[in-house]
Amino acid sequence: MSPASPSLPQRHAVFGTGMVGQAIAGRLAAQGLAVFMGSRTDDNERGRAFAAAHGERACHGSFAQGAEHADVVWLAVNGQHAEAVVAQAGPERLAGKVLVDLTNPLDFSQGMPPHLFTGPRESLAERIQAAAPGARVVKTLNTMNCQVMVDPGRLSAPTDVFLSGDDADAKATVAAILKSWGWQAPLDLGGLATARGPEAWVPFWVMLYGAQGTPDFNLKLVRS
Amino acid sequence: MSPASPSLPQRHAVFGTGMVGQAIAGRLAAQGLAVFMGSRTDDNERGRAFAAAHGERACHGSFAQGAEHADVVWLAVNGQHAEAVVAQAGPERLAGKVLVDLTNPLDFSQGMPPHLFTGPRESLAERIQAAAPGARVVKTLNTMNCQVMVDPGRLSAPTDVFLSGDDADAKATVAAILKSWGWQAPLDLGGLATARGPEAWVPFWVMLYGAQGTPDFNLKLVRS
Repeated sequence: MSPASPSLPQRHAVFGTGMVGQAIAGRLAAQGLAVFMGSRTDDNERGRAFAAAHGERACHGSFAQGAEHADVVWLAVNGQHAEAVVAQAGPERLAGKVLVDLTNPLDFSQGMPPHLFTGPRESLAERIQAAAPGARVVKTLNTMNCQVMVDPGRLSAPTDVFLSGDDADAKATVAAILKSWGWQAPLDLGGLATARGPEAWVPFWVMLYGAQGTPDFNLKLVRS
Repeated sequence: MSPASPSLPQRHAVFGTGMVGQAIAGRLAAQGLAVFMGSRTDDNERGRAFAAAHGERACHGSFAQGAEHADVVWLAVNGQHAEAVVAQAGPERLAGKVLVDLTNPLDFSQGMPPHLFTGPRESLAERIQAAAPGARVVKTLNTMNCQVMVDPGRLSAPTDVFLSGDDADAKATVAAILKSWGWQAPLDLGGLATARGPEAWVPFWVMLYGAQGTPDFNLKLVRS
């Protein structure tokens, strides 16, 4: 384990025990930060396994316990459950916290590629903000595979990551964490409503995954 | 003017006299190919100006006359008019022709960024195919600014362009034209329904235009 990163927020909760949650939680723990893996119940097996594997600063429990614990909450659940998870965590416990939204509003029920279950002029990020009005929601990292999220250097050239949010300090906090993972300066798209753009990218990403035969890619904006 | 490119289809019609139509028509004419600029009426001023400026192989007239004239038809009109333009051209005249669809289903009526007027599980390309069942529709180039479409080398590094279509020969024809403009091998996404992906990218593109302050960019897929 590397020494704790003093310039970064120390107490993190990662909501979701799937591939994305494991990747984010593992990366934060490897930086020596305190990581709480949150799940629907406080005895989740993958949460317990994460805590057992990552030393004395790693623990696990319910979403509500995680929200109490953390300075920064990473929402890494299935997009169809995102609003319910925020409700279970408790909007009052999330007030003032940085809530990093990694979710995507994907509906796979009608086959591939998935389509967005949000309307043409809304984003899941805005719905999450409405479910936790006091949280400082930042949308980021939803545009790529989770291995690339935490290790952008695995790709053959630098690529782009985006930030959307209404709280400039929260975006600066998230940008500092991304930089510590090897990202160049993220492209700040503006307020949280701009999350509609990167969320709309994801069905195309799924298609490009199929066309290329690998999820191990990301987009780079090339200028003149 | 460079000598005619013998390996490419010789007779082109470009539907649309705006920036995209002018860029495509001008590029084809500069290759020595026969270019017919089509518009709603056969006395369009910009169509006449194009024909006057581009030599004896350039002419102009109505969409129907253009469809009669061409081996390859480039649909470069406002997406909200695309189906009406195909109806004016005449599905019977477009039968067997390569119909290159550059349009986007954007609705700007509710402000910026625009939203898609298509449903979550359709594309404008599929609607255009339904309006001209005999045409060999290929979706491409809708993911970038028109200056980049015809001059990809203006950017600081190679970028990506996509093809969607149900007719493999038509896609090969379009790929050969793109290569003659300096494009590397396009990424073939598959059948025409895959046009849903690149069409969904465009509202995000408009947002990135705003965030970067220039339309002079394109995306590159970076792999490991």
